[in-house]
Amino acid sequence: MTDVSSEKPRPLFRPLAVPQVDVRGFWGDRVDAVASRTADILYQRCVDAGMLDQINPDRPAPGVRIPFHVGEGFTARTVTTQMFWDSDIGKTIETAAYSLYRKPNPTLEAKIDAIVDMYAKLQQEDGYLSSWYQRVQPGLRWTNLRDCHELYCAGHLIEGAVAYFQATGKRKLLDVMCRYADHIIAMFGPELEKRKGYCGHEEIELALVKLARATGNRKYLDLAKYFIDERGRSPHYFDQEARARGADPKDFHFKTYQYNQSHKPVREQDKVVGHAVRAMYLYSGMADIATEYGDESLLVSLDRLWDDLNAKNLYVTGALGPSKQNEGFTCDYDLPNESAYAETCAAVGLVFWSSRMLGMGPNARYADVMERALYNGSISGLSQEGSLFFYENPLRSHGDHHRWVWHRCPCCPPNVGRMVAAIGGYMYGLADDAIAIHLYGDSTARFEIGGRAVRLKQTSRYPWDGAVEITFDLETPTRFGVYLRIPGWSRSASLQVTGAPIDLADVTRDGYALVEREWKAGDVVRLALEMAVERLYAHPDVKADFGRVALMRGPLVYCLEGVDNPAPLHRIRLPVGAELTPRFADDLLGGIVVLEGSAEAERVEDWSGALYRTDPPRWDAVPLKAAPYFAWDNREPGEMEVWVREG
Amino acid sequence: MTDVSSEKPRPLFRPLAVPQVDVRGFWGDRVDAVASRTADILYQRCVDAGMLDQINPDRPAPGVRIPFHVGEGFTARTVTTQMFWDSDIGKTIETAAYSLYRKPNPTLEAKIDAIVDMYAKLQQEDGYLSSWYQRVQPGLRWTNLRDCHELYCAGHLIEGAVAYFQATGKRKLLDVMCRYADHIIAMFGPELEKRKGYCGHEEIELALVKLARATGNRKYLDLAKYFIDERGRSPHYFDQEARARGADPKDFHFKTYQYNQSHKPVREQDKVVGHAVRAMYLYSGMADIATEYGDESLLVSLDRLWDDLNAKNLYVTGALGPSKQNEGFTCDYDLPNESAYAETCAAVGLVFWSSRMLGMGPNARYADVMERALYNGSISGLSQEGSLFFYENPLRSHGDHHRWVWHRCPCCPPNVGRMVAAIGGYMYGLADDAIAIHLYGDSTARFEIGGRAVRLKQTSRYPWDGAVEITFDLETPTRFGVYLRIPGWSRSASLQVTGAPIDLADVTRDGYALVEREWKAGDVVRLALEMAVERLYAHPDVKADFGRVALMRGPLVYCLEGVDNPAPLHRIRLPVGAELTPRFADDLLGGIVVLEGSAEAERVEDWSGALYRTDPPRWDAVPLKAAPYFAWDNREPGEMEVWVREG
Repeated sequence: MTDVSSEKPRPLFRPLAVPQVDVRGFWGDRVDAVASRTADILYQRCVDAGMLDQINPDRPAPGVRIPFHVGEGFTARTVTTQMFWDSDIGKTIETAAYSLYRKPNPTLEAKIDAIVDMYAKLQQEDGYLSSWYQRVQPGLRWTNLRDCHELYCAGHLIEGAVAYFQATGKRKLLDVMCRYADHIIAMFGPELEKRKGYCGHEEIELALVKLARATGNRKYLDLAKYFIDERGRSPHYFDQEARARGADPKDFHFKTYQYNQSHKPVREQDKVVGHAVRAMYLYSGMADIATEYGDESLLVSLDRLWDDLNAKNLYVTGALGPSKQNEGFTCDYDLPNESAYAETCAAVGLVFWSSRMLGMGPNARYADVMERALYNGSISGLSQEGSLFFYENPLRSHGDHHRWVWHRCPCCPPNVGRMVAAIGGYMYGLADDAIAIHLYGDSTARFEIGGRAVRLKQTSRYPWDGAVEITFDLETPTRFGVYLRIPGWSRSASLQVTGAPIDLADVTRDGYALVEREWKAGDVVRLALEMAVERLYAHPDVKADFGRVALMRGPLVYCLEGVDNPAPLHRIRLPVGAELTPRFADDLLGGIVVLEGSAEAERVEDWSGALYRTDPPRWDAVPLKAAPYFAWDNREPGEMEVWVREG
Repeated sequence: MTDVSSEKPRPLFRPLAVPQVDVRGFWGDRVDAVASRTADILYQRCVDAGMLDQINPDRPAPGVRIPFHVGEGFTARTVTTQMFWDSDIGKTIETAAYSLYRKPNPTLEAKIDAIVDMYAKLQQEDGYLSSWYQRVQPGLRWTNLRDCHELYCAGHLIEGAVAYFQATGKRKLLDVMCRYADHIIAMFGPELEKRKGYCGHEEIELALVKLARATGNRKYLDLAKYFIDERGRSPHYFDQEARARGADPKDFHFKTYQYNQSHKPVREQDKVVGHAVRAMYLYSGMADIATEYGDESLLVSLDRLWDDLNAKNLYVTGALGPSKQNEGFTCDYDLPNESAYAETCAAVGLVFWSSRMLGMGPNARYADVMERALYNGSISGLSQEGSLFFYENPLRSHGDHHRWVWHRCPCCPPNVGRMVAAIGGYMYGLADDAIAIHLYGDSTARFEIGGRAVRLKQTSRYPWDGAVEITFDLETPTRFGVYLRIPGWSRSASLQVTGAPIDLADVTRDGYALVEREWKAGDVVRLALEMAVERLYAHPDVKADFGRVALMRGPLVYCLEGVDNPAPLHRIRLPVGAELTPRFADDLLGGIVVLEGSAEAERVEDWSGALYRTDPPRWDAVPLKAAPYFAWDNREPGEMEVWVREG
C-alpha cells in the first residue's frame, strides 16, 4: 500500500485503519451514536447552513452570507466562517465514511456521493478546488494564506477523501484531491518559480501524510515536509504576502505570528503558543514527518513542546487553550476553570498529536495523555445521544453552559464526530514485527504481521473495570511482539500470558510491557489494572485549583453535578480522608460508574444576615456523588465542577 | 444658621462643620498631604485637561475634546466626560476650600477666586450655569437629564460653593449657585408648568440640603425632596424626555433604569442596584431628607437598602460595585477580588451615606460601616504623599495594578481629596443637648451646646491603638450627653469618666455609650477598646473567598504585599491557629502597625515537571507580614491580596 517507509532508521508504528477494528462496549456505544445519529445530523446542518449552495456549480454563486466580524462590513481582509466551509464538509464526509463502515446507510452514502460529484464538477482544469475562492471571491486565490484557510480546507477535504476511499472503496473524491494536491505541489515548494508559503491554519501537513500513506505517493509526504520546514523562516512569507496584496503586514488581527505558530522555524520552537487547534495540527504533522523521515531534529522540538504543554498548560481533562481571545494558550499555569475556552477541537487535536507521537514506538508518556484527552475533554463535546455539541469545555459551570444544536463556526461537531467514529484507529499501532495496544476496550482487531493474518480480541468492561482479557486467533503460530500499555494512573498491575504470570518489572519499558513470543490461536493475555479512586492535586502555581482536588478513576476525570448533589457545589467540601466508593449505576446514562461518599456542606443558616464574621464556617455532613466529566450536561441542567474543595 | 429643623419629630444630629475640628495623628497626616499637595495637583490637572478653557467665557468655546465612546463619533446622544467637567471643578474647589482652612495657600486661593469669577461671568441672566450646555452644546439644556449629568454638575458646584464659603467666608460662588438653584426651582417641581424631571446621576439632592443648611433657605430642601419623591414614578420622566428629543426610550446604553435607581419610586426600593456611586449619592440625599423632614417612610426604605448592601453586596474593605460593566452592582454575593471594580468614588459615597444615617441619632450599625469604608476602600484611592490615584480598588492584584497620575474620567481624585480634607466633619455629630463621637482620633473639636462653647480634645494613637482620652474644656459647667461609639470590632471595652469606672452594659445602646452629666473643665473620659488581630470569614456564598480569611485589627483591613513576603502570595497559607502579632513599624510609610507571624508556603521544588499528582502539596514555614490595605502600592510594585488562604 505504501513505499515510503523504506528509508526510516527506527521501527515505525502506524495506526490500524479504522475498518480493521471492531469496537464494542464503551466506545462501541459512542460509535453507534455517531453512526446512527451524528453523521446524518452533520450532513443536514451543513445543508441548512447553505454550504451545498456554495460548492454546487449548478447553483447560483451564493455570495457572502456569514461575515465573521459582524458590523465591520465585508472586505477582502475580513474572515468569514464561509471561507472554511470546505473543511466542515471534509470533516462531515470523514465522519460519514467511518460511520458507513460501522453501519450501512445508503441514503447518507448517496448524499455524500452527490457532494463528491459537486466537487468533481467544481474542480478547475488545473486541479484547483475551493468553493470559496471559485464561487465567492474569484481571482484572489493564494493571496492570503495567513488568514483565509485555503490550504486548511484542502487538507480537510483530503482527509475526507482518504476516509471515504477506505470505508467505501470509492476513489472519485480521492482522485479529485490527488489532482488538487498535485496542483498545490506545482504552486508551493523550494523551486525558484514556486511560492514559499504555508497555511495560517495548519492541517494540510497531516492530511498530505494520510494521502501519501493511502496512495503510496512520496511526493505528498515531501510537500508536507516542505510546509513544515518552511514555516516561520525569514523573510517571513506572511509579511511578503501581505505586502504583495497591498496590505501592511502589521495590520494583523492577532498581532503576533505566535498565533499561528510561525513566529520562528518549527525546530526552534519550545513553547506551545497561539491558537490551540492550529498548534495541535502542526505538531501532529511534525510528528508524522518525524516518523516517516526518522527526523530526530523534529523529535527534539516535539518533546520540548510536549513537556511545555504537559508541565504547564494542560487541563486535567486533557483540554487546552484557556483563552477565548486567541482560542489558545496564554501564560504558564493559567488554567481557569469557569472561563476555560478549552475548545473541543483542541482536545481532539491533542488526541491526533499524541497518537502520532506513538509512531516512533510505544511510549506511555504519550499514550496516557491521548487517553486522558479521549475520555474527558474531547468527548465531553458530544452529547450522549450524539446530537448536541460543546464548543467550549469549561471545568466549572454555574449552570448556564449547555451543548448547542449548531454553531456559526461549526468546526467542533464534525471533529469530535470523526474522532469517535475512528476510535479503532487509535487503539492499536502496528510495526513490522509487533503490535502495540495503546488503548483497552472491548474490541476485535484484524491485521497482518509477517504476512500472516491475526485476529486479536479484547474482552473488557474498560474503562469501568481494569481487567482486560486478550485472545489471539491466527492460523499459523507466528513470532511477534505485543506491547501492552501499563497506564500511569494504575498503582499496580498484573499480567498473565496463557496462564503464566509475568513479572511486569522485567518486561516494562516506557510504560509498555513487551511480550515477545510465538503466538498461536487460543493464546490468552490477562492484564489486571488496579483502578482506584484518586485525588489529584494541581501544581501550586495553578491559582484556580488551590485547595481543590480532581477525582479520577482509571482514565476518567469525574465531576460534581448539581443534579447529583444536595447543596450548591461551591459550599461542598470533601474531607481529606473521606473515602469514595465506585458503583456501577446501570440505570444512569447508559451505565456509568459513579463515585459516592460523604462530604460536608458549609452551613448558611447560622449566618443570620452577616456577610463577614470572625467565627469560622460550620459544616454539615452531606452525601456526595461524582459522575464522569465527559457525561455532564446530559441530564437536568445545573452546576458542575471538576475541582472540588478539599479540607 | 438655619431655620429648617423646627418641625423635626426626633433628635437630629448634624455633622460639625469642617473648620470646627482640628485633626492630628493619622488623619492629620492625610489632611496635610491633601492640603499641601493634592489640592494643588487637582487644580493643575483640571487646567492641563483644558477644563478652564471650557468655563472661561473670555476664551473661544473649545468644542468637543474628549468623546467618551471613542470611534462612534460624537452625536447628541454620546456622553463625553467633558459634560461633567463642572463637577470635577466643583469637587476641586471643595478640596481646595477645606485645604485652605487647614493651611493658607494664597496662590491656590487666587486661582480658585479666578475660577469663581469665570463662573460668575458665565452665568446667564436667568441664573442658568453649565459650561457644557452654554459653551459646547448650546440650545440643548434640559433635554437629556438621563445621560448628561446636568443637575449633577450643579450639585457639585453647589457643594464647592458651600465649602468655599465656610472655609473662606467668600460668598461670591455661593450667591452664584443660589441664583442657579433658584433657576432650577423655577424649572422643576410639582407645579403644572414645571418639568417633572430629576437627574440620571444623583448628587443635586444632597447638595441642595447642604445649600439649605448653609443659607437657611428651606426652598432648597423642598426641591431636594421633590427630586427624591419624583424619582422612578410613572409615567417615567426619562421615557418622556427621550421621546421629546426624538429618541427611542429603549435606546438606552445601560438597558435598565436600575442603572440610575429610577426603576421604581425610592420608597419601594429594597435592593442596591445599578451604578454604585449614583446609588450612594441617592441614598445620601434620601437620608438627609429623612432627617430633615423626619420622614419615616424613607427610613424604612433606607434600612432595607442598608441591609441589602451590608448582608450581600459589600466588600470587606467597605468598597462596593464589583462590575466594570455598569460601574456597579451585579448579583448577591458576587464579590470577586481581582476583577473588583470597587470605584474609589463608591466607597467615598458610602462614607457620605453612612455618615448621614447618623443624622437620626448615633447608631454603630452605620458608624461601623462608615469607619470601614473610610479607613480602607476609600483612602486606598490616594497615595501616601497625596499625588497618585486609584480609580478601581481590587482586593487582589498580580502586580499590574497601580495608582495613576490622572484619568480621562477624573471623578475619583477630587472625591477622595474632599473626603479626606473634610474628615473632621465625619467625626462628630451635634444635637441640641448632646455630642456624638463617631470616630476616634487625635483631634480637637469646638462647638456650642446650650449656647455655651465647648472644647473637646481627643488624645489617641488611634487607629494604631485603642486607648482614647477625651478632655473637656468649657467656661461654665453644662449638662449635656456624650455619645461614645463602641466599635463592633472591639471584643471588650472599658470606660472611665474622671476616674470613675462606668459599666458599659448599663449605658450602651445601639453601639454607643451615653454619658449624660454636667460637664466641667478638666473632665476626662478614658475609653479603652480592645484591638485584637481578627480573622474574618466571608459568607459561604461569596465564592471568591472560600478557604480564605481577611485580617483586621481595629478598623483596618490588612493585606499581603509582595514586597513584604518571600513567596508568591498564591502559594502562602496561614495555618488555622497561627498567631499574628501587631508591631508598630515607625520606619514604614510614615509609621504603621504591621502584623507579623509564621505562615506556610506551598513547595514547588518537588513537583519536578508534573502539573498534577496524587501526593498532596507539601509546605515550608515562611514568615508572613501584613500591612494595612489602604497603604498598599506605596512601595515596590508587586502582588497584593486581602483574602489570604487559610488551612
